[in-house]
Amino acid sequence: MKLTKITPRDEDFAKWYTDVCMAANLVSYSNIKGSMIICPNGYAIWEEIQKIMDAEFKKLGHQNVQMPLFIPESLLNVEKDHVKGFAPEVAWVTHGGEEELEEKMCVRPTSEVLFCDYYKNVIKSYRDLPKLYNQWCTIVRWEKTTRPFLRSREILWQEGHTMHETEEEALNETLQMLHVYEDFQRNVLALPVIVGLKTEKEKFAGAVKTYTIEAMMYDGVALQNGTSHYFGQDFAKAFNITFLDRNNNLQTPYQTSWGTTTRMIGAIIMTHGDDHGLVLPPKIAPTKVIIIPIGDDEKVTKTINEITKDLDVTYEIDDSNKSPGFKFAEAEVKGIPIRIEVGLRDLENDEVTLVRRDTLEKIKVKTSEVKNKITELLDTIQKDMYNRALNRRNSMLYEAHDYEEFKTIAKEKPGFIKINWCGSEECENKIKDDTGLKSRCILEEETPDGNCVVCNKKAAHKIYFGKQY
Amino acid sequence: MKLTKITPRDEDFAKWYTDVCMAANLVSYSNIKGSMIICPNGYAIWEEIQKIMDAEFKKLGHQNVQMPLFIPESLLNVEKDHVKGFAPEVAWVTHGGEEELEEKMCVRPTSEVLFCDYYKNVIKSYRDLPKLYNQWCTIVRWEKTTRPFLRSREILWQEGHTMHETEEEALNETLQMLHVYEDFQRNVLALPVIVGLKTEKEKFAGAVKTYTIEAMMYDGVALQNGTSHYFGQDFAKAFNITFLDRNNNLQTPYQTSWGTTTRMIGAIIMTHGDDHGLVLPPKIAPTKVIIIPIGDDEKVTKTINEITKDLDVTYEIDDSNKSPGFKFAEAEVKGIPIRIEVGLRDLENDEVTLVRRDTLEKIKVKTSEVKNKITELLDTIQKDMYNRALNRRNSMLYEAHDYEEFKTIAKEKPGFIKINWCGSEECENKIKDDTGLKSRCILEEETPDGNCVVCNKKAAHKIYFGKQY
Repeated sequence: MKLTKITPRDEDFAKWYTDVCMAANLVSYSNIKGSMIICPNGYAIWEEIQKIMDAEFKKLGHQNVQMPLFIPESLLNVEKDHVKGFAPEVAWVTHGGEEELEEKMCVRPTSEVLFCDYYKNVIKSYRDLPKLYNQWCTIVRWEKTTRPFLRSREILWQEGHTMHETEEEALNETLQMLHVYEDFQRNVLALPVIVGLKTEKEKFAGAVKTYTIEAMMYDGVALQNGTSHYFGQDFAKAFNITFLDRNNNLQTPYQTSWGTTTRMIGAIIMTHGDDHGLVLPPKIAPTKVIIIPIGDDEKVTKTINEITKDLDVTYEIDDSNKSPGFKFAEAEVKGIPIRIEVGLRDLENDEVTLVRRDTLEKIKVKTSEVKNKITELLDTIQKDMYNRALNRRNSMLYEAHDYEEFKTIAKEKPGFIKINWCGSEECENKIKDDTGLKSRCILEEETPDGNCVVCNKKAAHKIYFGKQY
Repeated sequence: MKLTKITPRDEDFAKWYTDVCMAANLVSYSNIKGSMIICPNGYAIWEEIQKIMDAEFKKLGHQNVQMPLFIPESLLNVEKDHVKGFAPEVAWVTHGGEEELEEKMCVRPTSEVLFCDYYKNVIKSYRDLPKLYNQWCTIVRWEKTTRPFLRSREILWQEGHTMHETEEEALNETLQMLHVYEDFQRNVLALPVIVGLKTEKEKFAGAVKTYTIEAMMYDGVALQNGTSHYFGQDFAKAFNITFLDRNNNLQTPYQTSWGTTTRMIGAIIMTHGDDHGLVLPPKIAPTKVIIIPIGDDEKVTKTINEITKDLDVTYEIDDSNKSPGFKFAEAEVKGIPIRIEVGLRDLENDEVTLVRRDTLEKIKVKTSEVKNKITELLDTIQKDMYNRALNRRNSMLYEAHDYEEFKTIAKEKPGFIKINWCGSEECENKIKDDTGLKSRCILEEETPDGNCVVCNKKAAHKIYFGKQY
């Protein structure tokens, strides 16, 4: 038996990424073009993500529902900007069994119109507001090229869709959910993310404002890792959704939506992984500890029983008949945060060896102290992983003060470049054409301190540009 | 504000059913033909079902995965019996964006061929077996008529798909999962189910054997509430899946699949519901207890705080400004197992009133004893609900000794009729044509004690017949 070879990360990052995905049994290619199979180790991470995020959504009053999978063409057409954005990339169902449908239907690429179609029936009074619904489901977008977790025709995700009495409440919800995403990605996934506003060009089809979570991968390339949209009343007006307010006047409600996908698993891999495989932040690792016996001895078995009796984190024992070296490599490729090696030599001193997956550091610990050390070490690994990712990310943040400097950095250095920007799509497009970089996000809390680096007119915003997945 | 009126159950059972579904906010009709919306109260029950069943699957070594949503036509065609069974009822995707697909694809109606297509790539050796995979997902079958939870174009379900070294192991898995379903439905959903083997005519398209869980609704009509299939090597041979066995010989593995759907929610409603609405078995109720304050008094609030401080089951407090009577009715329609009424009159004796949802019995309890009483009462309600359903079900089980008796019972009495049967599809079809009853299941552990009631030839089986949803 042999482990799949992983291409070194610094030799070919793209190849390294797919090698890790396959070697860690996260995904598998399928024979169906554009679709991937999420394998047990990948799906287990998604289950952990769902568990933690879902609890957070519910704590804030959201309820889960399940909307239809299909959208009839006429329904997709109701909101004009929305249909323009999505119609070119949907899968169309035209036949049911042998019969041609009277009206073709697409598989949902996102569910704004489905929620609106429902809300228009159930929202009558301010007493029916807010509606705070979410769903975990599959969506389909007909992508030409696909990469595991990053881009595929089928996407597993969650989409929240809320309706509110007032603009202020809806804007608060948009920002609240943005920060739920931000906190989750920082604190659980150990991803140092930048949050901000998408430009008019890059915002969601039909939204008034789109906020985004921008993560930077090991290679300096951006991954948009979640978005939260404010819709104002545009969809609600298009769908004729109204309610009687507290003064008995007919009003139109204000809407939001927000979503994150299995793409977050791609971000974990590309931020933390190394040449040995996946490295999972302890808080999201389905299995926190793997215990590997070295040699088949009664004392080893007895020690493992003692250790696991007390252990209050998820663990596995690999007592298969593979060699210890093979088991170590397998535990490493899967990214399990801590490995415990239990062998006779260590036991002479009443010790076992703990190995950190993130640094591969070996630590001898008295058997009686394993439980406490594990608790402490999981916490340390989580913090260290975040800080290492933060330092690397920060080392690839640049600021350009004129367009020549911008182009030089863009050409020579991977990462994000901050600039003063006038706000025009023309300058945004020029950057894209000249350098291939796209706008990441407007930094709403920062004030421009110079003119637009492209056109030299008065700047409206500080903004990041970068290459993206 | 008014609660939706519910048609009395004995007046019009079908209307009562949809009234309860709507009044309890379990589902909502959508404007998309054939699709329904699962609303928060309905989805919360599904989440409880998933949590309990998923833990059971994992305890038995199964892992969750996610296979593609689409099946290309050529892949659906690989197993001949299977395609014959499913092709007439699938949704066909023919276009991606503006482009016509080279090969049309259906939205999965079930995933046997997708799992086989994957297994053929990953099963090489006996060391790769067994494969014990499951997925929670949506499937699509193009039904003409739809009823909430019972029949719709989109179905939320779980489907297990396993591969084994030996026939014996695969047969054991088929039966093991059948019994997991049976235990869950009996002990958690309080459904008195009958398990048995489907006839050749009624078995799953492509299976060697299909075992079924047959529940009987309040009106005596059957609901097939889960199936477990043994495939032998038929799919594996069609897909050319082979492995090297322990003696280094090439072998074909043995396969199973097993599934249950949100239809189980329909069974809960139609087995336990009454004229006041839904009645949830405590073990599956997302909220076990609802506390309703009567009057706005400090002493009431204080008592509620004391009670909830100790309570170790899920509860809600309805402190909205609706009238107590309205709140009672709302708690009843939602089927919450126990309601606690906290009012000043009871508090004079240091008491509160507990109301059982299943019997509407009122029980006065000292405030200090609420916690213990709740624990005891939830257990009692669970048992009583099962026994009531069992008694009703048993009162509608018949045995017919000749064909005239069979036809008389079939005409006059709702329920299941047991007969001796020769095993021929001819007799099975005759019963269907004459009475509308379909075979439910063969009782493998019972021995026939007479000739076939239809043709009077030697009987091969004891079997149940009944009308079905």
